[in-house]
Amino acid sequence: MFKVNEDYLKLPGSYLFSTIGKKVAAFQEANPDKGIIRLGIGDVTQPLAPSIIKALHSAVEEMAHEETFHGYAPDLGYEFLRSAMAKNDYQNRGCDIEADEIFISDGAKCDSGNIQEIFSRDCKIAVCDPVYPVYVDTNVMAGRTGVYDAVTETWSDVIYMPCTKETDFAPELPKETPDIIYLCFPNNPTGSTITKAQLQAWVDYANKNGAVIIYDAAYEAYISEEDVPHSIYECDGARTCAIELRSFSKNAGFTGVRLGATVIPKEVKCGEVMLHSLWARRHGTKYNGAPYIVQKAGEAVYSEAGKAELKEQIAYYMRNAKVIYEGLKGAGYNVSGGVNAPYIWLEIPKGMTSWEFFDCLLERANVVGTPGSGFGPSGEGYFRLTAFGSYETTVEAIERIRKM
Amino acid sequence: MFKVNEDYLKLPGSYLFSTIGKKVAAFQEANPDKGIIRLGIGDVTQPLAPSIIKALHSAVEEMAHEETFHGYAPDLGYEFLRSAMAKNDYQNRGCDIEADEIFISDGAKCDSGNIQEIFSRDCKIAVCDPVYPVYVDTNVMAGRTGVYDAVTETWSDVIYMPCTKETDFAPELPKETPDIIYLCFPNNPTGSTITKAQLQAWVDYANKNGAVIIYDAAYEAYISEEDVPHSIYECDGARTCAIELRSFSKNAGFTGVRLGATVIPKEVKCGEVMLHSLWARRHGTKYNGAPYIVQKAGEAVYSEAGKAELKEQIAYYMRNAKVIYEGLKGAGYNVSGGVNAPYIWLEIPKGMTSWEFFDCLLERANVVGTPGSGFGPSGEGYFRLTAFGSYETTVEAIERIRKM
Repeated sequence: MFKVNEDYLKLPGSYLFSTIGKKVAAFQEANPDKGIIRLGIGDVTQPLAPSIIKALHSAVEEMAHEETFHGYAPDLGYEFLRSAMAKNDYQNRGCDIEADEIFISDGAKCDSGNIQEIFSRDCKIAVCDPVYPVYVDTNVMAGRTGVYDAVTETWSDVIYMPCTKETDFAPELPKETPDIIYLCFPNNPTGSTITKAQLQAWVDYANKNGAVIIYDAAYEAYISEEDVPHSIYECDGARTCAIELRSFSKNAGFTGVRLGATVIPKEVKCGEVMLHSLWARRHGTKYNGAPYIVQKAGEAVYSEAGKAELKEQIAYYMRNAKVIYEGLKGAGYNVSGGVNAPYIWLEIPKGMTSWEFFDCLLERANVVGTPGSGFGPSGEGYFRLTAFGSYETTVEAIERIRKM
Repeated sequence: MFKVNEDYLKLPGSYLFSTIGKKVAAFQEANPDKGIIRLGIGDVTQPLAPSIIKALHSAVEEMAHEETFHGYAPDLGYEFLRSAMAKNDYQNRGCDIEADEIFISDGAKCDSGNIQEIFSRDCKIAVCDPVYPVYVDTNVMAGRTGVYDAVTETWSDVIYMPCTKETDFAPELPKETPDIIYLCFPNNPTGSTITKAQLQAWVDYANKNGAVIIYDAAYEAYISEEDVPHSIYECDGARTCAIELRSFSKNAGFTGVRLGATVIPKEVKCGEVMLHSLWARRHGTKYNGAPYIVQKAGEAVYSEAGKAELKEQIAYYMRNAKVIYEGLKGAGYNVSGGVNAPYIWLEIPKGMTSWEFFDCLLERANVVGTPGSGFGPSGEGYFRLTAFGSYETTVEAIERIRKM
């Protein structure tokens, strides 16, 4: 008789955003007349930029003719896109990354979930707390996290690095040495960042302790301050210890288009084994490439026109971030984030859990946010709002919250 | 110090089609004047059908405007596509499958590689031999296959079911009971099929023995004979033991567009646990949906115009299959397949290995095929040719082989 993967059964409840989706759907059904404003899930709302639309139409047209039709993509992505990324995201910033160290995928969520597969099941992971749930959940599914404690909502074999007001929302070097360290800056969910010097300390720590850093740079396009690194490869020594995840979802509005990339320098090794080779093997065996038309759309992101249009799009969302940040601050809330990231992290009034605040906001202001506790135990007492709505609905949402 | 997944290191050599790609590239570089004809990898060459192109353009246009823009897709796929599949692929054939039992993905390769994750590492798999390499390789990477014997080219914990001339290229019920049985009909690589009665025997066997069948129906659109099932759900009892994989790659030319689906009836259970729930959890946690524009293209496959255009496209490839089949037969080769499948399976002249035949064909006829041994030990002595070239190049390739 076949048996199932018991590790899947250890996962408590369902995936955070599925739960939110169900709660919102139930509320909407019970209150069909209420206009709900969604500042919960990090989904963009602005249409694709004109250069990207043009590239998509043009690539679709190529698929209509035998001479220009494209079948299976190269396993690791088209050269035109890998080169554009290597040049624009790395070499132009002084980062030593080659095109063949970049693996194109259908999104950073998949990559951040799949990357753990190339490591031993014995590896111990360290995560920020709060944290994007995919890092921990996918390690649970792989049997790497030990036993769940329902009271503390933590796993016995995970090293949690609290990021709260007390640590200025940055993780401190852990006492116990991890094998794999997940870092995400600008951070989801807190919207916080660390400086290049702070990131350098992590790179030095990883190299010294034989750890790998999985660096999620999905929000780098939102950085507005000078001293905040856009890539971990801005740090010395990152080529021997860091994997970087890149996404087109937030910098180009590709949440429904699906494109991402993982960067693995050839120098990240365990003995003689390059992680680059293992990831290449995974791509070749379990994946068949991102759609040609989507990779062409990705190329357009790096065109001069594309860059200018996307700069405007990001400015649009960051104006929302400012509206939320200042509106809530003006209403007496403690807020952080929102300067180098599209996320605003709100301290919940004393006496309420973050799911209670979620329900309250949904019922009284008809605004959807994300409870901090959904991102880990240290997220309790906090709440995430995103800047990805339209300007008008964002202004309206903040008005409603202020009137609550 | 971090460690890698040792199971990845057990994989012998590289993925079959990567190896072929490298050999062909090396030959082309050494012989830049030779016109190589590729009948190796199962990649389509005909452009997307007009209805699909129209749907793609229209969906791209939707993405250009805020009111019709689409962000994250529903985890499990858009309702419009799941319903179209449920109706056209299942209910119209009398198969009892609901839209919410269909999970949309970016392709059957990913699904066939990822599906093993929801099973225990203790499960024993059975595969046809020869077989599409992804089934075995992904189980190797998960640590489920035991020890590799380089002489027999087999894994100690895999049950191999030989499909050779002696078995009429169909598997026999295994002596040892497996937990998971991979079946693919019409078959890749042999191009063979089994009747509905034969498939019913497998369903009965699985139900009796508590096994799950993973049924890969990627080539069902090529079936031309009456008694060959298009879906395993045509068999009684399949709802309690079978998962079906569907692909748009071969029925609609989507190899570079990327779309597939996995069907898991809610009745496939281990105790109280539905495999449906586990796969839903995997989708929700590690995947972010196929692109909206691609799912709209998938919907067009089921439009009246789309169906008519694709019927023609498949007829085009099947004309190639006939050219290959009859041409090689006329030249004195023993051939099978090619009637309900786009693959022709050729018996290699005695005294040659299938990689030797590969090299010989590449060097003397400048034609690329796939060595049967790449699909498993019982593939030795055979060779796969695909019908996915253009008509003209297919005719030319067969001419060249005949002259060899």
